Amino acid sequence: MSICYINGTFIPMEEASLPVSDFIILRGVGVFESICTFHRRPLMLTPHLERLASSAEGACMAMPMPLEDIRRAILEGISKMTGDCMVRPFITGGDTFHQGCFPATRLFILFEKVQKPAPEIYDNGVYLVPVDRARHSPDVKSVDYMSSYKEYSRHDDAYEILYCPDGEITEAAHSTFFLYKEETLITAPLSRVLKGTTRDIVLQLAREKGIRTEERTPLVSELSGASEAFITGSVKELVPVVKIGPQTIGDGNPGPVTKMLHQTFLEEIIRWLE
Amino acid sequence: MSICYINGTFIPMEEASLPVSDFIILRGVGVFESICTFHRRPLMLTPHLERLASSAEGACMAMPMPLEDIRRAILEGISKMTGDCMVRPFITGGDTFHQGCFPATRLFILFEKVQKPAPEIYDNGVYLVPVDRARHSPDVKSVDYMSSYKEYSRHDDAYEILYCPDGEITEAAHSTFFLYKEETLITAPLSRVLKGTTRDIVLQLAREKGIRTEERTPLVSELSGASEAFITGSVKELVPVVKIGPQTIGDGNPGPVTKMLHQTFLEEIIRWLE
Repeated sequence: MSICYINGTFIPMEEASLPVSDFIILRGVGVFESICTFHRRPLMLTPHLERLASSAEGACMAMPMPLEDIRRAILEGISKMTGDCMVRPFITGGDTFHQGCFPATRLFILFEKVQKPAPEIYDNGVYLVPVDRARHSPDVKSVDYMSSYKEYSRHDDAYEILYCPDGEITEAAHSTFFLYKEETLITAPLSRVLKGTTRDIVLQLAREKGIRTEERTPLVSELSGASEAFITGSVKELVPVVKIGPQTIGDGNPGPVTKMLHQTFLEEIIRWLE
Repeated sequence: MSICYINGTFIPMEEASLPVSDFIILRGVGVFESICTFHRRPLMLTPHLERLASSAEGACMAMPMPLEDIRRAILEGISKMTGDCMVRPFITGGDTFHQGCFPATRLFILFEKVQKPAPEIYDNGVYLVPVDRARHSPDVKSVDYMSSYKEYSRHDDAYEILYCPDGEITEAAHSTFFLYKEETLITAPLSRVLKGTTRDIVLQLAREKGIRTEERTPLVSELSGASEAFITGSVKELVPVVKIGPQTIGDGNPGPVTKMLHQTFLEEIIRWLE
């Protein structure tokens, strides 16, 4: 069963609702996080909470309660779930807009069974659709996904869209993007993209394995010379990318470095559980 | 009192809510309209309904009920209000996302007292902040306003942000933009901006008054030579713009053409009431 922490209490998710006057409904004003548990412990909980607070600050939204109280509610919710779960805390705009800011926000936290991607996508890899624009405000993890769904709906064989403003690859709509080329793992710098928590783990593990890393935007023009690519996210972990637009990556199959890093991620993940 | 039409019935707005599982909350998936009544009759109701349907189609959202039934609910709601009101129908993403589309959407319609801008803004004019980007997907009137609020919050003396991608002025965050220069009224073409209902009325009235009109994007570099500027919207009608970024428009006061067009709009509005 899915549960929701809202108004200071836990209720079944299907009974949880928000007033239609909330700016998250009227004007798309909301920030959130997706946190997975492993062995019933949350992965990277502190970095997720810090990013939630940072997103709220970036959007001029007041914190609805202290971060430590949100942490306690998350841990209590996890203890109520049977088995591993996905935890999604949301901060909503609330009913008040004053001088560009949202002083009276709301909090709710969803606890649901994790919906992992189908095993085939790890075996076969996925196709991404490049679009010639960037995510707006990557410093804020907001609920603004409508425009990416709109582009995605035109390509139903695609797994996600890939932001490629002016030929530079920044990130995918829901994921961090990595390119592996000439024995170097390349991903966009934090000045250009959302600060992915899985991104941080993967970069650290790659360095520990002796792989050279570069934090710069890979270029679309580099794809033809790349041997591997993958995307990362809290739920998807590492998903191999085998095609981007018309360009096949490497030999069109998931590569050995991607597989090794995913395996290492699963083996080492305990280091980042809280 | 504000009322809400939801789940086929009218209730006080403060009692109306949406399940937290709706994609308008989780992912910002929603489209809407703002319709004003004058003499208790809705202005441009048919164009607003057509745009609502067009927005839903553009976002791959199913219509939650036939357009004629939405029209009937709007007219019934207006009859329940005392005096003029603002009517805002929303279509929400619903709980289902399938192949980039939203097949099970929800509808709710808000009926509220119109909050017109303060009289001073018509007397003094407003200041707009230019930003070097465009609205995403102007063919869809979506609830995605978070990014514009974020920019606005840094300039609390500004009335709205003004989209100026690559030096071309497209539209304001919540309004259509008009520039008056060398006895010509200039506004961006529909290929670049949201199809404003007030925009259509103003263009028609200007032509009837013998004013030359051009549908092209005004340039930021033209502002210094312009004599007047204004923005339009269903609630704000015509609001004079006297400054854009560092540039004063004309002599820094609302101009005679803007005032004449606003006066004509109020006198002639009955032609577009339904």
